[in-house]
Amino acid sequence: MEKIIRVNMADLSTRIEAVPAGWAGLGGRGLTSTIVAAEVPPTCHPLGPSNKLVFAPGLLTGTPAANSGRLSAGAKSPLTGTIKESNAGGTAAQMLARLGIKALIIEGIPKADAWYSLHVSMDGVTVQEETELVGKGNFAVIEALEARLGKKTGILTIGPAGELKMTAANISVKDPDSKIRSHGRGGLGAVMGSKKIKFISINDEGAPKVPIADPEKFRTASRAFAKALLDHPVSGEGLPTYGTNVLVNILHEAGGLPTKNFTAGQFDSHDKISGETLHETIVARGGKHKHGCHAGCIIQCSQVYHDKEGKYVTSGFEYETIWGLGADCCVDNLDDIARADNLMDDIGIDSIETAVMFGVAMEAGILPFGDGKGIIRLLEEEIAKGTALGRILGGGAGSVGKAYGVTRVPVVKNQGIPAYDPRSVKGIGITYATSTMGADHTAGYTIATNILNVGGFVDPLKKDGQVELSRNLQIATAAVDSTGMCIFVAFPALDIPECLPALIDMINARFGISLTGDDVTNLGKHILKVERQFNIEAGFTKEHDRLPEFFKSEPVAPHNAVWDFTDAEIDEFWNF
Amino acid sequence: MEKIIRVNMADLSTRIEAVPAGWAGLGGRGLTSTIVAAEVPPTCHPLGPSNKLVFAPGLLTGTPAANSGRLSAGAKSPLTGTIKESNAGGTAAQMLARLGIKALIIEGIPKADAWYSLHVSMDGVTVQEETELVGKGNFAVIEALEARLGKKTGILTIGPAGELKMTAANISVKDPDSKIRSHGRGGLGAVMGSKKIKFISINDEGAPKVPIADPEKFRTASRAFAKALLDHPVSGEGLPTYGTNVLVNILHEAGGLPTKNFTAGQFDSHDKISGETLHETIVARGGKHKHGCHAGCIIQCSQVYHDKEGKYVTSGFEYETIWGLGADCCVDNLDDIARADNLMDDIGIDSIETAVMFGVAMEAGILPFGDGKGIIRLLEEEIAKGTALGRILGGGAGSVGKAYGVTRVPVVKNQGIPAYDPRSVKGIGITYATSTMGADHTAGYTIATNILNVGGFVDPLKKDGQVELSRNLQIATAAVDSTGMCIFVAFPALDIPECLPALIDMINARFGISLTGDDVTNLGKHILKVERQFNIEAGFTKEHDRLPEFFKSEPVAPHNAVWDFTDAEIDEFWNF
Repeated sequence: MEKIIRVNMADLSTRIEAVPAGWAGLGGRGLTSTIVAAEVPPTCHPLGPSNKLVFAPGLLTGTPAANSGRLSAGAKSPLTGTIKESNAGGTAAQMLARLGIKALIIEGIPKADAWYSLHVSMDGVTVQEETELVGKGNFAVIEALEARLGKKTGILTIGPAGELKMTAANISVKDPDSKIRSHGRGGLGAVMGSKKIKFISINDEGAPKVPIADPEKFRTASRAFAKALLDHPVSGEGLPTYGTNVLVNILHEAGGLPTKNFTAGQFDSHDKISGETLHETIVARGGKHKHGCHAGCIIQCSQVYHDKEGKYVTSGFEYETIWGLGADCCVDNLDDIARADNLMDDIGIDSIETAVMFGVAMEAGILPFGDGKGIIRLLEEEIAKGTALGRILGGGAGSVGKAYGVTRVPVVKNQGIPAYDPRSVKGIGITYATSTMGADHTAGYTIATNILNVGGFVDPLKKDGQVELSRNLQIATAAVDSTGMCIFVAFPALDIPECLPALIDMINARFGISLTGDDVTNLGKHILKVERQFNIEAGFTKEHDRLPEFFKSEPVAPHNAVWDFTDAEIDEFWNF
Repeated sequence: MEKIIRVNMADLSTRIEAVPAGWAGLGGRGLTSTIVAAEVPPTCHPLGPSNKLVFAPGLLTGTPAANSGRLSAGAKSPLTGTIKESNAGGTAAQMLARLGIKALIIEGIPKADAWYSLHVSMDGVTVQEETELVGKGNFAVIEALEARLGKKTGILTIGPAGELKMTAANISVKDPDSKIRSHGRGGLGAVMGSKKIKFISINDEGAPKVPIADPEKFRTASRAFAKALLDHPVSGEGLPTYGTNVLVNILHEAGGLPTKNFTAGQFDSHDKISGETLHETIVARGGKHKHGCHAGCIIQCSQVYHDKEGKYVTSGFEYETIWGLGADCCVDNLDDIARADNLMDDIGIDSIETAVMFGVAMEAGILPFGDGKGIIRLLEEEIAKGTALGRILGGGAGSVGKAYGVTRVPVVKNQGIPAYDPRSVKGIGITYATSTMGADHTAGYTIATNILNVGGFVDPLKKDGQVELSRNLQIATAAVDSTGMCIFVAFPALDIPECLPALIDMINARFGISLTGDDVTNLGKHILKVERQFNIEAGFTKEHDRLPEFFKSEPVAPHNAVWDFTDAEIDEFWNF
């Protein structure tokens, strides 16, 4: 039987509950957002006692379905003030699913000035005081816990950034190689820090397999689904070969690669940080160019990057990080970027927010553009140590903009705008403006259709069709984020007719139900509306669905494009 | 003829314009808010090119009317994101009024990386590059400008805080003794800094007297008005004797003196910082306990405070500052508070926001409660120098709360809650929650009726009547803030029947018109609605008309009162 686990940090009590009927058909983002919307007062302080931190594996997580191993984390975000869901790979999702845990809900704030850890197993959950690992980086936490509890232990942990309640702090998840994947965006690490939980360990010993109502049907659908993933050129070839960083050259070519804090759309040194260069470097140094963030991943877009001596530097080395510290900060040294990526994993801070932040910090004059070594120094000496400057930087792009009076701050709802310039890739601008999450490319990844010709083509430089494109993708994504699936299943789902029906068939076979495509679309719509209602009750209006002014007034090379949507055109998004 | 002066910093051009018909009957706050609402896009970045900084003397400023010498400054606030008006005494208002300047509107941002000054005289306005005084404190600016331009020069200036665009930066106004009064709240100094204007000098040589349509009627009304001011026990006796700091013991007695970052309502050492102690100290050391912030002030609540050697330390030494650094930071040494007050004047930073901020900084552990010397050190070494910590502190209470993850942050719309606990003086809580300006006691000073028994009595501990009280006072204040009158005319206006008619008669005699009491009330309502509409279009909703959560959950001694208004009760405020 699936169950809900509740931990109340105010009195350190735990409770196992039956799954309410209304939550039974939900998983992942659909479930975290439903629980947050139902139980968290929208105007509460995100770091106060009324916020809750919710973890939920997806509907298909724990099954043999390819790429289904993602975990959603949800709360009111201390970065944006909106509802927040952020999902990640790693081993925790599948372990929680096998333990029958539909959601783990963490409430309240401890009375004592102490740190705690949670331990989840077949016996339920326990709360223990933790002293040894407080103040430690994430890699040290993982190493110590594997020694303490065994190599197979699942781990969710926060680094110094989360302990310091920095609003760019993330929650780290141990991956199959004892490295790190992240619930990156929105400062959920600060919420975990506010609840004084340093880590959550998971032991799934004795857990049964995830039950499947119709195994035969599941197997057939699962095979068709996996075939679609492997057949599509993006998920079957581009991503496995170059990782997500395949996008550097593509976005540079499209003139949509934000450079020097969004002052240009192309980076002269793009070749030095491109997916192709990354691939060659990884191969030459004996790293891994194919690597999965969770068991059952068949895309393998993750990377393991070594230094010149062939020693491990970082993994899960993504385009958005490389873009942000690279083009946006004008750093053309991949080794510096890799080192910074590793430090961000260790400190437990969102690599997108932090990269966008460094672009703003450079505009503010805190360090010069191009200073990769300076980035490393600020991460090690300021952010990790929680100095005053470190706290400003750890608050993300908006925080630096406020502290230094910078007006060119690429954020929506105070969350940093990622790796695609909304002036020259207009569809993604609609996603940034309207997403319930603040600026988030994954919320409705129009790059697929604007740039990669997946799911047709919508001209990135024209306004026509962008609102509809973003709307359809945001609806679909909200549903996909509920399944535990990686977002990259969207590529075959948009192009290969058998893919989406196979995904729905897997859900139906898993639970013995009969969802249609319309049901899935309606689920996506429902999730977006629940999230938006939370935001409205938190004080958000259409005036917050706007890009920063400078995108309207500053044309970006090479297309000299500006953000030219009217407010009314943007607001059309919500007409569904 | 009255005129509007416009300065466009983008091209350093200036323009003299006729007063549009719709602005003719407006002055002070009524005019700054009307101009900001008409010309500033509500969603613009407050430090970007679209914001405008507007100065306007009141309707009666420059006339012989008692206490009519205040200047309004308006803009979109970088602290709150709302519309903002902040008024101050000093000599500038009367000089501008004599020069026939109804409003000075400063637009745009310079292209060059240079600093400028404006010079206003009978010849109009000029823009000049400034190098010598950049980086200097306000007292040095005043001293240098008096040497450069003559002792009588009127001066509006920003200190290091404004240059650094700190959101707690104020605009300083030279007073009759070459000391400083401030447009304190809302970070307007940062707006002036964003426009790269270090100071505005005013020369009213050759300016005619302000014309009065019916001098005889004006004289009669003016006499009756002055008599009312002198006859009322608060404006005629309490304030002249003890200054505003008369309130320390009164609020302590009432249990509404926020202490130790709003954890208690009484301060054990209240006697050491009280108005009575201040009075004795000033007298013993040869300071001035009666002092006016502008020519024509007959209340003289300002103070000149000397040190033990009889040397000047500070003036304009107000209750809210003494409360904030005193009770709220648990500092019981008046000399330390006076020194900090002087530093805040020199740095150009709001003493209310900064005092509330230090309470939060102490809760964050940046310095211990009671550490007056630490406050002085942080002002001198961090804020004045714009270090990273200084920038966090210079962003006010909300900034420190965000950077250090503090949840007990007494702000509304990110502006620090002043010197009256809303749990035990409930009327002022309604003002804090609903004011268009963020938490601002002057917007609707219910302390008059809740605590001082002026204008009747509304029990401060009960909810009954508070919304209506705050509403009536906010409407009246919006109108009074348009006249150039000091807020303390409200005391006789509420109690002495001849006072308000005399004020209206003066306006009618000045302009040869025939306003009624209803007209004045309607003006106040109109101003509030214009301001609120701006805020709505900037993205504010009723969800922002709320006090921080901890006022609801933490009872405050000695009454163990909590903030117990429902959202619906608060929202009743806007039903007019």
